[in-house]
Amino acid sequence: MSAMSNEQQPRALVVFTHPEPHSFNGTLKDKAVDTLTERGYRVEVSDLYGEGFDPAEGPAHYGERADRQVFAPLAEQRRASAHGTLAPEVQREINRLERADLVVFQFPLWWHAQPAILKGWMDRVFVNGGLYTSSMRYNRGYFRGRRALVSVTTGGPTETFAHNGRGGDIELLLWPLHYSLHYMGFTVLPAFRAHGIQGSGYAYRDATGFQAHLQFLQAAWSERLRHLDEDRPLRFADWEDWDESGRLKPGIPGHDYFIRAQP
Amino acid sequence: MSAMSNEQQPRALVVFTHPEPHSFNGTLKDKAVDTLTERGYRVEVSDLYGEGFDPAEGPAHYGERADRQVFAPLAEQRRASAHGTLAPEVQREINRLERADLVVFQFPLWWHAQPAILKGWMDRVFVNGGLYTSSMRYNRGYFRGRRALVSVTTGGPTETFAHNGRGGDIELLLWPLHYSLHYMGFTVLPAFRAHGIQGSGYAYRDATGFQAHLQFLQAAWSERLRHLDEDRPLRFADWEDWDESGRLKPGIPGHDYFIRAQP
Repeated sequence: MSAMSNEQQPRALVVFTHPEPHSFNGTLKDKAVDTLTERGYRVEVSDLYGEGFDPAEGPAHYGERADRQVFAPLAEQRRASAHGTLAPEVQREINRLERADLVVFQFPLWWHAQPAILKGWMDRVFVNGGLYTSSMRYNRGYFRGRRALVSVTTGGPTETFAHNGRGGDIELLLWPLHYSLHYMGFTVLPAFRAHGIQGSGYAYRDATGFQAHLQFLQAAWSERLRHLDEDRPLRFADWEDWDESGRLKPGIPGHDYFIRAQP
Repeated sequence: MSAMSNEQQPRALVVFTHPEPHSFNGTLKDKAVDTLTERGYRVEVSDLYGEGFDPAEGPAHYGERADRQVFAPLAEQRRASAHGTLAPEVQREINRLERADLVVFQFPLWWHAQPAILKGWMDRVFVNGGLYTSSMRYNRGYFRGRRALVSVTTGGPTETFAHNGRGGDIELLLWPLHYSLHYMGFTVLPAFRAHGIQGSGYAYRDATGFQAHLQFLQAAWSERLRHLDEDRPLRFADWEDWDESGRLKPGIPGHDYFIRAQP
């Protein structure tokens, strides 16, 4: 590793989403940084809470405007992207993404999805015009060739997030996020899930059994990160699989997760 | 309607999510207010952008704390809810929800989900302890007997949001939101969708054909709101349908949307 030049060294970005640095999510973020560093990656962290990222896309973020009267988000993104007038924190996140061969998203599942601050990071950073257009998306997307990996924690236990579980099939809950990453061109690896993380886990003040559960999950996460090259990415339909109206062509199996959901 | 007393008058809350009041979403919000008022509802609006709602759940919103060292969101929500120390804007939204027999959510689909500001409204307003507990959720949820209705706009056309469409099966994209509303006890009506709303639609400056499309959608939305009582709500599995480990009992059909997604 010490012999590795900067040119050869792979780079990773960990997008960390939790308001408490000492949360279990925080320890998984640290574990990712340590493990990926050991594996030879140069690692950056986007700490959305720590850096105070504003998740609400809106006119406040645009000094110059394509239209002063009416705020149309995509039109303003296109203009700011083309004129180099994106908000500094948005440009910073784009720069981080552009440097990364691997992007890891660490967050807790809140209301069956990513927390708002991460959703807003997507709303603001995945800018129209600059990072996607009608012809630059899906497997023709801007970040094609890069890998993305979601690491999610849930309060409920594993069983309730199975396909017939009360908490909701987590593959379907993650589908809007995974599909967005595919839309941006990323190769999406299967999510890592740490279930059963109750509030008491945040401060490591719980009983021995719970400690052991947390340590097991941290070790599993580290082990997973050591073997990313063995992962089989999620399968998505390719651009060529759709007809002109945007429907799947006959005989094409489609995505792993959503085409199986026949009405 | 004028003869109707306040006691008899049904109440509606429209949760409006768009940074531009003159957007097409804004006109659908206005149409909902007008139509529901005509139908005898007393209508309130939560204008998330207009009221500057902060979508990031975190320690900044809690003066008194259950734990000053480590911020655990659900523990702080429980304490603030029990002690009456929730942030004023959160308490205001809870009060609005408690007054409403019908809640309408108007928003554009951004990155295959609701915009961050609406996600954060859920993260902060659906407070643990006060509005849900491990035994007060799903069909035993706090808002049981009230109805919820999503009205969503998309840039892409209708075909691409069908079950085999390139944009993603919109039923699956809305599933995390719909399931969250069910979790809170709401009777969830099928979503109203307005597809093909391109940026040029925001300011009504487009060609006649596009104007006609927008007017058709506005009329369809108003018509839909006049006939809500004829809606068949989404079917969700009931509390009694799950076994002790949170898995669906054998022979139970499950939800309309997610159980159909067999692995």
